Amino acid sequence: MKVAIILGSASDKGTMRKAAEALEGAGVAWSAYVVSAHRTPGLLDETLRALEGDGTEVIIAGAGLAAHLPGVIASRTLLPVVGVPISAGTLGGLDALLSMVQMPQPVPVATVGVDNAANAAQLALRILALKYPDLKKRLEEARAKTQSAFAEQNAGFSLL
Amino acid sequence: MKVAIILGSASDKGTMRKAAEALEGAGVAWSAYVVSAHRTPGLLDETLRALEGDGTEVIIAGAGLAAHLPGVIASRTLLPVVGVPISAGTLGGLDALLSMVQMPQPVPVATVGVDNAANAAQLALRILALKYPDLKKRLEEARAKTQSAFAEQNAGFSLL
Amino acid sequence: MKVAIILGSASDKGTMRKAAEALEGAGVAWSAYVVSAHRTPGLLDETLRALEGDGTEVIIAGAGLAAHLPGVIASRTLLPVVGVPISAGTLGGLDALLSMVQMPQPVPVATVGVDNAANAAQLALRILALKYPDLKKRLEEARAKTQSAFAEQNAGFSLL
Amino acid sequence: MKVAIILGSASDKGTMRKAAEALEGAGVAWSAYVVSAHRTPGLLDETLRALEGDGTEVIIAGAGLAAHLPGVIASRTLLPVVGVPISAGTLGGLDALLSMVQMPQPVPVATVGVDNAANAAQLALRILALKYPDLKKRLEEARAKTQSAFAEQNAGFSLL
Amino acid sequence: MKVAIILGSASDKGTMRKAAEALEGAGVAWSAYVVSAHRTPGLLDETLRALEGDGTEVIIAGAGLAAHLPGVIASRTLLPVVGVPISAGTLGGLDALLSMVQMPQPVPVATVGVDNAANAAQLALRILALKYPDLKKRLEEARAKTQSAFAEQNAGFSLL
Amino acid sequence: MKVAIILGSASDKGTMRKAAEALEGAGVAWSAYVVSAHRTPGLLDETLRALEGDGTEVIIAGAGLAAHLPGVIASRTLLPVVGVPISAGTLGGLDALLSMVQMPQPVPVATVGVDNAANAAQLALRILALKYPDLKKRLEEARAKTQSAFAEQNAGFSLL
Amino acid sequence: MKVAIILGSASDKGTMRKAAEALEGAGVAWSAYVVSAHRTPGLLDETLRALEGDGTEVIIAGAGLAAHLPGVIASRTLLPVVGVPISAGTLGGLDALLSMVQMPQPVPVATVGVDNAANAAQLALRILALKYPDLKKRLEEARAKTQSAFAEQNAGFSLL
Amino acid sequence: MKVAIILGSASDKGTMRKAAEALEGAGVAWSAYVVSAHRTPGLLDETLRALEGDGTEVIIAGAGLAAHLPGVIASRTLLPVVGVPISAGTLGGLDALLSMVQMPQPVPVATVGVDNAANAAQLALRILALKYPDLKKRLEEARAKTQSAFAEQNAGFSLL
Repeated sequence: MKVAIILGSASDKGTMRKAAEALEGAGVAWSAYVVSAHRTPGLLDETLRALEGDGTEVIIAGAGLAAHLPGVIASRTLLPVVGVPISAGTLGGLDALLSMVQMPQPVPVATVGVDNAANAAQLALRILALKYPDLKKRLEEARAKTQSAFAEQNAGFSLL
Repeated sequence: MKVAIILGSASDKGTMRKAAEALEGAGVAWSAYVVSAHRTPGLLDETLRALEGDGTEVIIAGAGLAAHLPGVIASRTLLPVVGVPISAGTLGGLDALLSMVQMPQPVPVATVGVDNAANAAQLALRILALKYPDLKKRLEEARAKTQSAFAEQNAGFSLL
Repeated sequence: MKVAIILGSASDKGTMRKAAEALEGAGVAWSAYVVSAHRTPGLLDETLRALEGDGTEVIIAGAGLAAHLPGVIASRTLLPVVGVPISAGTLGGLDALLSMVQMPQPVPVATVGVDNAANAAQLALRILALKYPDLKKRLEEARAKTQSAFAEQNAGFSLL
Repeated sequence: MKVAIILGSASDKGTMRKAAEALEGAGVAWSAYVVSAHRTPGLLDETLRALEGDGTEVIIAGAGLAAHLPGVIASRTLLPVVGVPISAGTLGGLDALLSMVQMPQPVPVATVGVDNAANAAQLALRILALKYPDLKKRLEEARAKTQSAFAEQNAGFSLL
Repeated sequence: MKVAIILGSASDKGTMRKAAEALEGAGVAWSAYVVSAHRTPGLLDETLRALEGDGTEVIIAGAGLAAHLPGVIASRTLLPVVGVPISAGTLGGLDALLSMVQMPQPVPVATVGVDNAANAAQLALRILALKYPDLKKRLEEARAKTQSAFAEQNAGFSLL
Repeated sequence: MKVAIILGSASDKGTMRKAAEALEGAGVAWSAYVVSAHRTPGLLDETLRALEGDGTEVIIAGAGLAAHLPGVIASRTLLPVVGVPISAGTLGGLDALLSMVQMPQPVPVATVGVDNAANAAQLALRILALKYPDLKKRLEEARAKTQSAFAEQNAGFSLL
Repeated sequence: MKVAIILGSASDKGTMRKAAEALEGAGVAWSAYVVSAHRTPGLLDETLRALEGDGTEVIIAGAGLAAHLPGVIASRTLLPVVGVPISAGTLGGLDALLSMVQMPQPVPVATVGVDNAANAAQLALRILALKYPDLKKRLEEARAKTQSAFAEQNAGFSLL
Repeated sequence: MKVAIILGSASDKGTMRKAAEALEGAGVAWSAYVVSAHRTPGLLDETLRALEGDGTEVIIAGAGLAAHLPGVIASRTLLPVVGVPISAGTLGGLDALLSMVQMPQPVPVATVGVDNAANAAQLALRILALKYPDLKKRLEEARAKTQSAFAEQNAGFSLL
């Protein structure tokens, strides 16, 4: 049970580390790479072959601007690819969002919200939980904990 | 190995049937339902309980406009939910896209392109293939076939 | 005569407190809650049942991003629901606005401007004033006062 | 118990009549007017004075393009004003939506979805139901009927 | 030869003063007012009557958000109205731009760029110059001066 | 008293003729030209010199897509230029609108709504009326007529 | 002197043939291919190697939706790549435009307007004309011809 | 082998200098100018004539807002023009992008990403490399260096 996190640029580290933290919290192994779809295509193919060999089951990829990275990965593997559009540049990430989500059939990128790397990890966990009943149980426990923590934390909420 | 397809409205049938066709083509069982997140919340919970009981592993949900359906489903199950934003209304589906993809952590919707139900099915297949090696093999064969069909078909392409 | 203010996240407090201040200023009782449509669905139903029991007549709900909260509330009660789209994230609140305003019939959310919680309170006051003639009178007085204050304040206005 | 429906242009009749039909269906009296905020400002003031005199309690106003009508009405009365942005022109109604929903405090327009006049009526009904318990009961019955009709109608749904 | 500058809110002073400065620079008299289309409609009518009486020939109006002010002015006078959309709020002024520019025929607002009050003044000067040959001459001189100043200033430009 | 109407392409004739009709209706002389800012720059300069010589006082220019025409005209004359963004292409005219309205100071284009050539003519009439009192009177009469026609026409309006 | 035209899908033929026609008209050799960046990556590499071998100097690539094709080509060759965003789907081609134009440095796509394949050819011609003086001369002649044809054709233009 | 960089305003220096740095790095001569399409049209024509005389082969032009500069240049020369949309103003550069990229045939602007002047230089280098084999070789070396530098730099990447 392993997830790979691929960044298009080291400058996306601050955003993407939340994916690693969420996987960590769920006890799922992960590894991270900085690879550019367009600047280092050879390295990308190499990395993907290695990942398929070492048992990686889900790939999370984050990128900004034209943000082709997750789509290019999805065209070179049959593993499920989760895409995180990153709000680099001046358009609030709308460019990255459209570049990922509008991928043609049969090369889907499972796109989550702009900059929402934590949710990408949650999606990866749901996918893995189909196969690993233990993880499913941990997710159920986490959900219950989240709910009661949320409720407790806001029990005495005062707006003014 | 089973996928459920949930429509927010029977009027989305023309768009969503492409998901069923793609699953059918891959030899994966599916069932379909029309349930509204907001107009029939009780029916939705009932349907989800039934699906979890009958071994459904991935849910594909399509909706237009405010398009809450996939998100509401994702909050009521831990199965992976694939969302298809539908271009009902006058805004080209941008409303549905944002309503799905911007879901908060830890309730992700794996969003695909506007009206792209076929790609939603492809994503479901990739997810299932992690667990079912036979399906993985079928996907690889399909990919090879798609590639050679695409190449053959366009070999004698003439633009003028 | 009572209004409930529901926040999807405690981090929206700074924006939503302006609703409470406006209600306070009009002498209308209010209560506030932090409840997530998707992270604590059980708590939401419970809260809504309590509100219907204690005579709450209008609900103001604020949320950002996918911003399903007001719509989910509107599907679980027949009270009028006023929605405040909050500019969380990088898209200026356009995501939240579309997710609220594009709700399907018969589940309307009375949507006001992005981050404009004060205007949500004003809408709630107009709704309540239909039933409570005293409040209507107070609103008329407030309007007159606003007008003369505005006029006075800007009487000696100098642009340079 | 009376609702007024005001159109900025007779050409919006096809869209706005759905509001009248929904009110009719709920047994609520309504009247309709074509008045332009900018082309017939005198007529608008006159109409609003008449409406306040005849017991009208909610105003539904639809307009396209700059779509000032509902906002101008809200500035000249204290009744709750429900706005329907109409997709006249080439921008899908985004212009009308922003012109209505972004009204400044304390002059709110309760905005519903683009072209969704039926939902405007539903919002008016929820508002009136606060004061008229009979209507509340009728809304509850309608909701139950809608739910079972929806469920029945889609019970034997087949996607292919 | 006189121009009136009307602000929807005193908080737009920083943006709108550039209109006054440009008029000043061209030797054209101006006066400024803060009047709200919706919060002080009576005051607006009064102000407009006064302006028509004192020989004002062009009105510049700036507003943000729903930004009805210039349109409402244009419906209450036959003087040319120049509108400045102001980037209040979170949508970069797109809301104000659409609310002004999409006014229906025959109630035009001569819209200039977001926050570009200086250009509103330039438009007012061009309009006045049709009637006042002296001003036309001053504009020609200013244009010549601008051109040579621009050229001189950038003659020794070095990019690195 | 003369207005020139300049089209960037003969294919905009259907949209721009409404400007001519409105001028005609007000008894104002006009002439029309098809000139491209970028494809026939020499012809444009020639045309503008001729217009300045023959007493033209306002120029209305319509264009789609990059829509530079009105801005280029405004940089080559000091006459007021009214711009009509035309919805050629697939973006609903948003491209043309932004290309016109965002002109830098001191080169304003008085922009009206997308495809709204009739309103461009109305703006030209208001500008000319500053100088020609007869036209002012005709505009006042037209306004009065419009109002009563609008009122009469909609007196017996029935929505259902 | 040769240009290659690459389509992401045979369904873009109607749009992209205008590039071929423009090249033809300028006497420049061209060839056309249908190759998918993601569905047939192997075929793409093969095609690009062949093109580099046969003396192709500019590549024009058209694609819709996520529209990665021109960017992927630009990452695999150092030839200049001209991109044509195609308005497939429901978003008017804004998705394709952003996916092409926002490519990261040093992998540029020379992007032209949505669906404007003729302009892509014109850009290719300008690029080739740097190296081939004969072509430069032909472009100058064509420009002169276009100008006089445009002028002649519109000499007797009548708007009404 | 020479490139000209033209800025619409000296305030774009910070953005556009990256073009100069990239050209410098590739050993290509460049010169820079501040010229306004609309404020100094005479100077622009003069500059372009000088550039054509001194052997300049590619022009890079950056501008914000209405951003006509690159298009106006492309209409006055047959050299390839690369446009850099600059995010001046409040709309994130979407205005400048559309104003450049949507130019009509046969007057293309080779548009690159918002604020991405470095990529404009890369495009210019690819264009020049068609004619100058030495530069082609340098680009190939640079690409190889970039790839290994990228790979090395990120070899020991750690996300947490």
